[in-house]
Amino acid sequence: MPKSDIGLIGLGVMGRNLALNIESKGYSVTVYDREPDVTERFVSETAANRRISPAYSYKELVGSVSRPRKIMLMIKAGAPVDSVIDQLLPLLDNGDIIIDGGNSYYRDTDRRYDRVSELGLSYMGVGISGGEYGALNGPSIMPGGDEETYNSALKELLSAIAAQAEDGPCVTYIGPRSAGHYVKMVHNSIEYGVMQVIAEAYDVMRKVLGMSAGEISGTFAEWNQEQSSFLMEITAEVLDRADAETGQPLVDMILDTAGQKGTGKWGVQDAFDLGVAVPTISAAVEARIMSAIKSERMLVSSSFGRTGLRDYGIGAVRGAIEGATGCDASSLLRDLKDALYLSTVMAYAEGMKMLQVASREYGYGLRCHEIARIWKAGCIIRSSLLPRVQEAYLEDAGQVSLVTTRQFSGDFRRRTGGWRRAVMTALAHGVPVPAMSAALSHFDNLTSPFLSANLVQAQRDYFGAHTYQRVDRDGVFHTDWLKGR
Amino acid sequence: MPKSDIGLIGLGVMGRNLALNIESKGYSVTVYDREPDVTERFVSETAANRRISPAYSYKELVGSVSRPRKIMLMIKAGAPVDSVIDQLLPLLDNGDIIIDGGNSYYRDTDRRYDRVSELGLSYMGVGISGGEYGALNGPSIMPGGDEETYNSALKELLSAIAAQAEDGPCVTYIGPRSAGHYVKMVHNSIEYGVMQVIAEAYDVMRKVLGMSAGEISGTFAEWNQEQSSFLMEITAEVLDRADAETGQPLVDMILDTAGQKGTGKWGVQDAFDLGVAVPTISAAVEARIMSAIKSERMLVSSSFGRTGLRDYGIGAVRGAIEGATGCDASSLLRDLKDALYLSTVMAYAEGMKMLQVASREYGYGLRCHEIARIWKAGCIIRSSLLPRVQEAYLEDAGQVSLVTTRQFSGDFRRRTGGWRRAVMTALAHGVPVPAMSAALSHFDNLTSPFLSANLVQAQRDYFGAHTYQRVDRDGVFHTDWLKGR
Repeated sequence: MPKSDIGLIGLGVMGRNLALNIESKGYSVTVYDREPDVTERFVSETAANRRISPAYSYKELVGSVSRPRKIMLMIKAGAPVDSVIDQLLPLLDNGDIIIDGGNSYYRDTDRRYDRVSELGLSYMGVGISGGEYGALNGPSIMPGGDEETYNSALKELLSAIAAQAEDGPCVTYIGPRSAGHYVKMVHNSIEYGVMQVIAEAYDVMRKVLGMSAGEISGTFAEWNQEQSSFLMEITAEVLDRADAETGQPLVDMILDTAGQKGTGKWGVQDAFDLGVAVPTISAAVEARIMSAIKSERMLVSSSFGRTGLRDYGIGAVRGAIEGATGCDASSLLRDLKDALYLSTVMAYAEGMKMLQVASREYGYGLRCHEIARIWKAGCIIRSSLLPRVQEAYLEDAGQVSLVTTRQFSGDFRRRTGGWRRAVMTALAHGVPVPAMSAALSHFDNLTSPFLSANLVQAQRDYFGAHTYQRVDRDGVFHTDWLKGR
Repeated sequence: MPKSDIGLIGLGVMGRNLALNIESKGYSVTVYDREPDVTERFVSETAANRRISPAYSYKELVGSVSRPRKIMLMIKAGAPVDSVIDQLLPLLDNGDIIIDGGNSYYRDTDRRYDRVSELGLSYMGVGISGGEYGALNGPSIMPGGDEETYNSALKELLSAIAAQAEDGPCVTYIGPRSAGHYVKMVHNSIEYGVMQVIAEAYDVMRKVLGMSAGEISGTFAEWNQEQSSFLMEITAEVLDRADAETGQPLVDMILDTAGQKGTGKWGVQDAFDLGVAVPTISAAVEARIMSAIKSERMLVSSSFGRTGLRDYGIGAVRGAIEGATGCDASSLLRDLKDALYLSTVMAYAEGMKMLQVASREYGYGLRCHEIARIWKAGCIIRSSLLPRVQEAYLEDAGQVSLVTTRQFSGDFRRRTGGWRRAVMTALAHGVPVPAMSAALSHFDNLTSPFLSANLVQAQRDYFGAHTYQRVDRDGVFHTDWLKGR
């Protein structure tokens, strides 16, 4: 019996679609799921008459794949990955390759890489973005591990199954060890930020302007023609969808409680370790947290007399501000478009900055322009911004921030006025815009030659003798603040 | 030769002052520093004629302390603590007590507690706040570890040296294992938040209103009479201080680059793990990060034409907004006072919420009202808010948020208008107020019965089949969004 080109473990929606994608490009696949029924049904139904064969044990799976064996894990991140590796290792030989295609935490990938490499096998941590549709039709793929292994064993296959942009397949060798999973974590962190700022624009439209889901859908669809992104595109579709049961817009029937699987949280925690500010992204992750405590919010909001969708305007700022900010629908929408656009750019700028610092800190040797290139199609954050991000990093790999680049600085010069007005209007109405306002504060911090940290440092020196620097000469200084008090 | 009551390792400013404090309460102390000169100078000069004796080796130190021996570490957090423990363990006996009085990361304390306890010794992780002045004159003390050890060996001594509030010494048994260091980490996280919102109020006063350091000092001093806090008090003093060299206000000569030692960062990272939103605090930690990249800020700001202290108003929102927000000095100052006050309360509310959740998650059994009580004097975040926080937690230990309590909800009802206007004015002028605006967004999130997370969850279901809940009935739902597209 001929051996398969690759073995794939885990037939969830991503695993199934990836197996179908791989087979469609001319490769044979052996698949395994811990539930034999799932394996059998997949192979006999969806994958019938294709070069996809079942295995019902790891031994059978390993035995059916040609050498060097490529075994790809498409399973839940965390302990399950270690458990499967434990069971695979005794069955594999020198030179075989374990590929983790899930959303593993990058430090776990480092640990597993070390463990597997020491045994003479290869370990590749591969970030894959694109959701179920991308897995089937071409995702963006971020492979990390040994470059020789990538070139000799994976490049051809991954290039075949990846999404295709104008300038090639959306895959490139990312870097050593955990670099692939790290970059995927940052991708997802940007995704958190972008989703949240879109949601905030929606919230302002419905709460301040009283627009219906259908009207908001139309607005996003229109904006998307100018500055397009996958997330904006699906937002317009989501908002246009009717609930089959009630006939209402489906989005209005969905509970305002968003889940998270950890990549955004890990991204923020790592940014704090790196000393990179990612306020837009951290506000987005915190917004998910706030959404999850629905019962607490109901309790608090009712105690403040807010029970309906438009019970806003606490503190009576509403009336006072409307004249000044021009809170008629058309000017607010124009401002909101600026706010959405620039806040989105800030989310990308924060993520790209993380990549620059992590590359140095962790020795990844990341080529940021290449990462922008492979995000141009297939992945969740694909957008018309990315060709410009790619270009910006091609021109200057060590740039301080996307904000100052030739590609984006003009937009910031022209459109911050609208951004400010939109955020101010939301604040005046009590509509929460944590990510948009964090993005704006980030911009204001970044463009401030003088921050208020001189006072903070003086306070620290006062109570903790932490010392300070001076503006007029070098050195480290301490004042005895209590003396002469 | 009579044995000392306690041994103390590490004669930095905190260690020295704590030794003097302990001795002044009638205890004898043996002190050790890794630099023999430091030990000798301290004992022969500052501590001359006091019951403070030197040791020049760990062996000598251990031999000079009465049993059960109490050995207190006042050294830099991290690897040094492990190294000193390594060297002490062979010298100590069953029942002896190692006390870590530094700012150790709570997970390190858990690990050390396990290691030392297994050997039949006691390990106490003790948070101490109050800076050098507090260490000498009475700090707030947060002891964690075994309760029996605390009661039998430490309670009397720590109660004697702690700051004294009306209702007793500022020390209480916090909880098992790392509880003491955890609570200290949260204390410091709140401190980051409060320092940052004070700095933002200062920044608005100087940049928008053009007030001098002296004028701002006077304003803070005045506000501090109504709602007093240690940090506000020292801020007024700091701003009033002249530079001996130039005669200028000293604060104007200090570089706007603030350092950090990790406790705030750890706090935010842990809050993300716990699923507690702490936006005010995370914005404060990110503001420290932004302050540190001074050279990058100089580059970016000059490319946006901002070079002076008052080169603000990018996007020309300034003129448009001033009429509406009433940007004359007196009304802005009134609003700013509201913003400072409510943002400060949010920082406390976020920290206290962390304590509630951590208590459950880590099995600490924290009594939040007792923690508020011991923060009332001696520590850096002592303020006139704390008696009300103590009362609020006495009345309801499981409250959703300080925001809704009898003690604080009235202030939020009355003063959010001013808070909003102050933040809006800062945004209009391009003056960064990341913590004040994050605090306001937190309030708006918390008081929102309907957030925009329904859209986020729909997006997640669209691209990742993550499912959603409905508003009208229980269950978990998934829509095939591509069907009928």
